[in-house]
Amino acid sequence: MPRNAPAVKREATAALGAEIVFVGPSGVERQEKAEQLAAEHGYVIIPPYDDDKIIAGQGTAGLEIVEDLPNIDLVLVPIGGGGLISGVSTAIKSAKPDAKVIGVEPELASDARASFRAGHIVKLPAEQVLSTCADGLRSQYVGTLTFEHIRRYVDDVVTVTEDEILETVGILAKNPKTVAEPSGAVATAAWVFHPELLPASNHTVAVISGGNVDPDLLRRVRS
Amino acid sequence: MPRNAPAVKREATAALGAEIVFVGPSGVERQEKAEQLAAEHGYVIIPPYDDDKIIAGQGTAGLEIVEDLPNIDLVLVPIGGGGLISGVSTAIKSAKPDAKVIGVEPELASDARASFRAGHIVKLPAEQVLSTCADGLRSQYVGTLTFEHIRRYVDDVVTVTEDEILETVGILAKNPKTVAEPSGAVATAAWVFHPELLPASNHTVAVISGGNVDPDLLRRVRS
Repeated sequence: MPRNAPAVKREATAALGAEIVFVGPSGVERQEKAEQLAAEHGYVIIPPYDDDKIIAGQGTAGLEIVEDLPNIDLVLVPIGGGGLISGVSTAIKSAKPDAKVIGVEPELASDARASFRAGHIVKLPAEQVLSTCADGLRSQYVGTLTFEHIRRYVDDVVTVTEDEILETVGILAKNPKTVAEPSGAVATAAWVFHPELLPASNHTVAVISGGNVDPDLLRRVRS
Repeated sequence: MPRNAPAVKREATAALGAEIVFVGPSGVERQEKAEQLAAEHGYVIIPPYDDDKIIAGQGTAGLEIVEDLPNIDLVLVPIGGGGLISGVSTAIKSAKPDAKVIGVEPELASDARASFRAGHIVKLPAEQVLSTCADGLRSQYVGTLTFEHIRRYVDDVVTVTEDEILETVGILAKNPKTVAEPSGAVATAAWVFHPELLPASNHTVAVISGGNVDPDLLRRVRS
């Protein structure tokens, strides 16, 4: 785990019985350490996003959306490394080619938007992406495989500010009574604060993924 | 509203634009004040539970349970005045006569259990029922109509302690990421802490109703 992972995630992981190896906050260091441990002990590495099976698994969320809401016309999905939106957008566009899929990122970690606009993968500075409160979306760049999915199936990528993300964590806890961590709240934040950036729609789903929010943060945003 | 309603409920009511009239904590005083205001201003009183339309409306939760889980065999429902369990148990028993419906109360406000066992409506002392943290279940006695439903359709009434209720609020926030207030958590608390009091089952639903939890309480039970 990155040394700067929130306490709530470190504690939940330890509570499940894991032996935690801490590494620096950068993705590169994490990958190297994982490969070293896998080589030494014969472990299997489960990639976080840039993998066809991971993408296919996350795509089941898209299948469930279409099953529950057959007339869906807009789906908002958070983007970190791009695995979730790759799977969801592929599923949505296969079943409902006219529905729009929009990716949502923290402004501070808007590497996917930069890549989407440039037409090639753009890398953002580590110190910038590490400064977002949405710790699950602190990626400097999207994956090779995920970028191909985003290019093909995602209609646009929009961003939200840190304040908008935190306020949405409070709104989600207060109204639909859902505990979401900042990374899980970004798609809803786009719907709440930036309707002007989104296509017109009658049936919208915002994917909320990740609820390991620090109790103190939850209390602060609700007060 | 009773003067001792939690701040989170007072504030949410005011935020919706209501003019709040505070009364003492007893149900009798509340009823008298409501009748007086209705007579003066021509208002319509919406009864909290002892009313056939309220019971029928709450019964839709039971219809949804059967629709979503056709092989349901056990349903756990909180009891305050008994409206929710009257509707839910009528719906469940109509659709699935073999399924069991169990009411759950705070030990401090176990008037429905006392009535269920005595075979007639038993009234508990106000100071006792007012001391439970489950402010939505602080009823001294169930209604006349609701008692008839409970007698006919409910299989048993069990109780949970204050500590069990509070711990369950924390469990619900941490695991299924659901914000429940103490009154909303009692049915789940019975399932977590008192399986020995419940009939054997393969498909159980615990109704969680009420999520207006004080932010400080939520933080405390999660730490």
